Amino acid sequence: MSNPTDAYAELIKTLREISLLGSIGSVLHWDERTVRPPAGAEHRASQLALLATMTHARFTSPRIGELLATVEQSELVKSPASDAAVNVHHTRRAYDRATKLPPSLVEEMSKTTSLAENAWEGAKKSSDFKSFAPWLEKVFELKRQEADCVRPGKNRYDTLLDEYEPGETSANLRVVFESLRGPLVELVGKITASGKKAPTEILERHYPADAQEKLARETAAAVGFDFDAGVLARSVHPFCTSLGVGDTRMTTRYDENYFGDAFFGTLHETGHSLYDQGLPAEHFGLPRGEAVSLGIHESQSRMWENLVGRSRSFWKHFLQKAKAAFPQATAGVSDDDWYFAVNDIRPSLIRTEADEATYNLHVLMRFELEQAILNQELSVADLPAEWNARMKKYLGVTPPDDARGCLQDVHWSGGGIGYFPTYTLGNLYAAQFFEQARKDLGDLDAMFAKGDFAPLLGWLRRNIHTHGKTYSAGELAKRITGKPLSPEPLLTHLRQKAGELYGV
Amino acid sequence: MSNPTDAYAELIKTLREISLLGSIGSVLHWDERTVRPPAGAEHRASQLALLATMTHARFTSPRIGELLATVEQSELVKSPASDAAVNVHHTRRAYDRATKLPPSLVEEMSKTTSLAENAWEGAKKSSDFKSFAPWLEKVFELKRQEADCVRPGKNRYDTLLDEYEPGETSANLRVVFESLRGPLVELVGKITASGKKAPTEILERHYPADAQEKLARETAAAVGFDFDAGVLARSVHPFCTSLGVGDTRMTTRYDENYFGDAFFGTLHETGHSLYDQGLPAEHFGLPRGEAVSLGIHESQSRMWENLVGRSRSFWKHFLQKAKAAFPQATAGVSDDDWYFAVNDIRPSLIRTEADEATYNLHVLMRFELEQAILNQELSVADLPAEWNARMKKYLGVTPPDDARGCLQDVHWSGGGIGYFPTYTLGNLYAAQFFEQARKDLGDLDAMFAKGDFAPLLGWLRRNIHTHGKTYSAGELAKRITGKPLSPEPLLTHLRQKAGELYGV
Repeated sequence: MSNPTDAYAELIKTLREISLLGSIGSVLHWDERTVRPPAGAEHRASQLALLATMTHARFTSPRIGELLATVEQSELVKSPASDAAVNVHHTRRAYDRATKLPPSLVEEMSKTTSLAENAWEGAKKSSDFKSFAPWLEKVFELKRQEADCVRPGKNRYDTLLDEYEPGETSANLRVVFESLRGPLVELVGKITASGKKAPTEILERHYPADAQEKLARETAAAVGFDFDAGVLARSVHPFCTSLGVGDTRMTTRYDENYFGDAFFGTLHETGHSLYDQGLPAEHFGLPRGEAVSLGIHESQSRMWENLVGRSRSFWKHFLQKAKAAFPQATAGVSDDDWYFAVNDIRPSLIRTEADEATYNLHVLMRFELEQAILNQELSVADLPAEWNARMKKYLGVTPPDDARGCLQDVHWSGGGIGYFPTYTLGNLYAAQFFEQARKDLGDLDAMFAKGDFAPLLGWLRRNIHTHGKTYSAGELAKRITGKPLSPEPLLTHLRQKAGELYGV
Repeated sequence: MSNPTDAYAELIKTLREISLLGSIGSVLHWDERTVRPPAGAEHRASQLALLATMTHARFTSPRIGELLATVEQSELVKSPASDAAVNVHHTRRAYDRATKLPPSLVEEMSKTTSLAENAWEGAKKSSDFKSFAPWLEKVFELKRQEADCVRPGKNRYDTLLDEYEPGETSANLRVVFESLRGPLVELVGKITASGKKAPTEILERHYPADAQEKLARETAAAVGFDFDAGVLARSVHPFCTSLGVGDTRMTTRYDENYFGDAFFGTLHETGHSLYDQGLPAEHFGLPRGEAVSLGIHESQSRMWENLVGRSRSFWKHFLQKAKAAFPQATAGVSDDDWYFAVNDIRPSLIRTEADEATYNLHVLMRFELEQAILNQELSVADLPAEWNARMKKYLGVTPPDDARGCLQDVHWSGGGIGYFPTYTLGNLYAAQFFEQARKDLGDLDAMFAKGDFAPLLGWLRRNIHTHGKTYSAGELAKRITGKPLSPEPLLTHLRQKAGELYGV
């Protein structure tokens, strides 16, 4: 075996090439969800499966195991926050996971999830759960096999969750959710009892799609999205993806009869994009240049969408732009009515459109259902009924069809089991970080009112983006805020807003 | 070595996987030219280089040589028009070529041409030849190296040409061009002397881009483009590409002050697409499922663009649609004026906008210039001056800037040296096939006037598309028309049209 310095250099070179290959898959996924014509589905699935197999084969090569072992025993990784230690630690983690997956399972997973996403899109359009059920069944069965390969005999859900939120467990998550549920249910109950209703009709007027897109671009650029290194396109389900250095892309969808969907959806994806555009390019393809976790990624999107985008000061700057873009729809609308309308708190059907307060109940429900299906306590066939029962129980509403019920999200079709809880983690981290940014930066509201978002973005770049995976989510929370993850900042924020708007 | 049947099966499986990998590169190229943001150029070039290297490494594996040798000595390839013989013959040809190219050259070529295309796009925008010159220099130098690797000591240009038009030579091409030049120059001279001018002003009114796009889609669908298995998007330089089974894509560009560019450009790319959509899907990834040559591919695009799209009968059906799409621009325009306007014959600056008669003079000029640069008889620095001198000599016009001169085409930046002459071959094959289709199908004009293009498309499917690479271009001409390639059908067609419109 070569010396540790040579071994590390070879490891880095290999990892970068594997990431380059992986980034080709990202281009295919992007195209799949934005351009690919219907008849090309099968061929695209074959392309993705081939890439997944090749990437997996390269990453699981024994040579990587040898290189890791050599470097791990050396001085190079002595300081845990050094670039080398970060790269080696996270590569070891992923390597151990990947080497336990047989290539046949990797290929089948890629092909199945690609076709299942396609089936989901069709099923959602016609609200036809039955046509999607066999695909969902197959995806869950493959994820069970994956979990059993990675950690035989252990909690399957925790094994899958760990992929998205390293170190997190379902037991911990249940505690976190419980600490939120009581206060949230209480708050939402008070709001409903107040009898006050936001003037949401304002947002349901005619908002032409082209003008929405123009405003979305303008807003994304204003908060810091670099269009020279990024793209905003359209797709059925909005998402953000990075295809490589200098190429971060996001999508949105435009509903001409509802302002909120595209505007806040774009701000949300912009939050994700700002994180990706802020990661250190010189470490591309290595853990040191990657995002901490999905929860931390989501903290960025939720901060820009909700804590910034739904603030009174944000609209002091942007309402005039919205009025210029939609003179008819916004004619005579007051600042207060607009602010109240974009902060409507009310149980609703669609997670991505849910308000800041009820959002976590949507997540909690999915968290429970996906565990039940994975553990075979709930059959896929019974999902629609169980979904609707829980919607009734937690939110008091019943979806009129599966398109607005259990078919609304893309995640499960793509194999994202254990993914949903990271959304609530994102909300919690966002509020906690934002509280600290206020302390560090002074009067954020005065800045927002002037359209100045650079100080906040700079703070996020310095404190979060630039570090890549150097610190875990928990470490990051402690380094930045001096405290471990806590539900208090989010609850404080929500209580304050509810008090202001609903007098509760 | 295994028995020939097993060897052939392994060969086919391997070739299909290599094609699948290659088709991933097509997705990247598509995205590169339609979506990719500027800052992502370098990363995209790295992705393309990696794929090119991997594809080349797989295709040049000695195992393929062994498999070929086994099958070649067997009964499997006895009948030259059998699927096996076609696949083996063309694979041998490509294998012998590819194994002579060092992987380092393949990688450098991929990376350089990707960046050179990018440089070309910028240079064209600002008409800045100097910023592009170093890239063009590098591309030509790499192509010289390529030619010398493939056929040391032989005519470099012929070696490159053979890649696009198997079996063709520059000596033959010079004969073909000569047989066209005299009659064409004579015909264009008569037209100029006639003093008659087409009312082209009609086409230079305001044609809104959205309405142009709608009509382009409608027209493409009407002649047979399957949008379920295809896409029409926008890009700087129109092109067509197939990304796999069920996924054929084309682009166009919309000039709001000129009707002809997008309309005939889209018909042109539709002609290419119809060929790709008509290739036998069951043979995807094998020569048996691929187009004959670039010349034959171009014969399909030129047939739909010119022989169909500029015919009087075509406009009997489509003028009413154009009038509905552009009521202002087309108000009061007569059938005769419209027909004359879209058949304006006049020397002009841009090849892709040139009429049927002068088009080949544009090609001839490029054919001469690329040979001169390749053979180092002309320096890249002198290209703009030489370009303009030849424009003056052959067409009597002088480009006002390089954007409308030697920077107008993408081909050289992407390494397409020896590509241009296939355009003129396409015109010749198109006219010869079309003459035969008229004989076989009866009154084509009556069909076109009713908007019925299915009989012509069916004829092309049966006679050309379905055969893949089974027959060479020359064999195909003889099988279909009973004659070898001849300039007469094109000249007859042009003389007839010129007679009708210009009275010459």
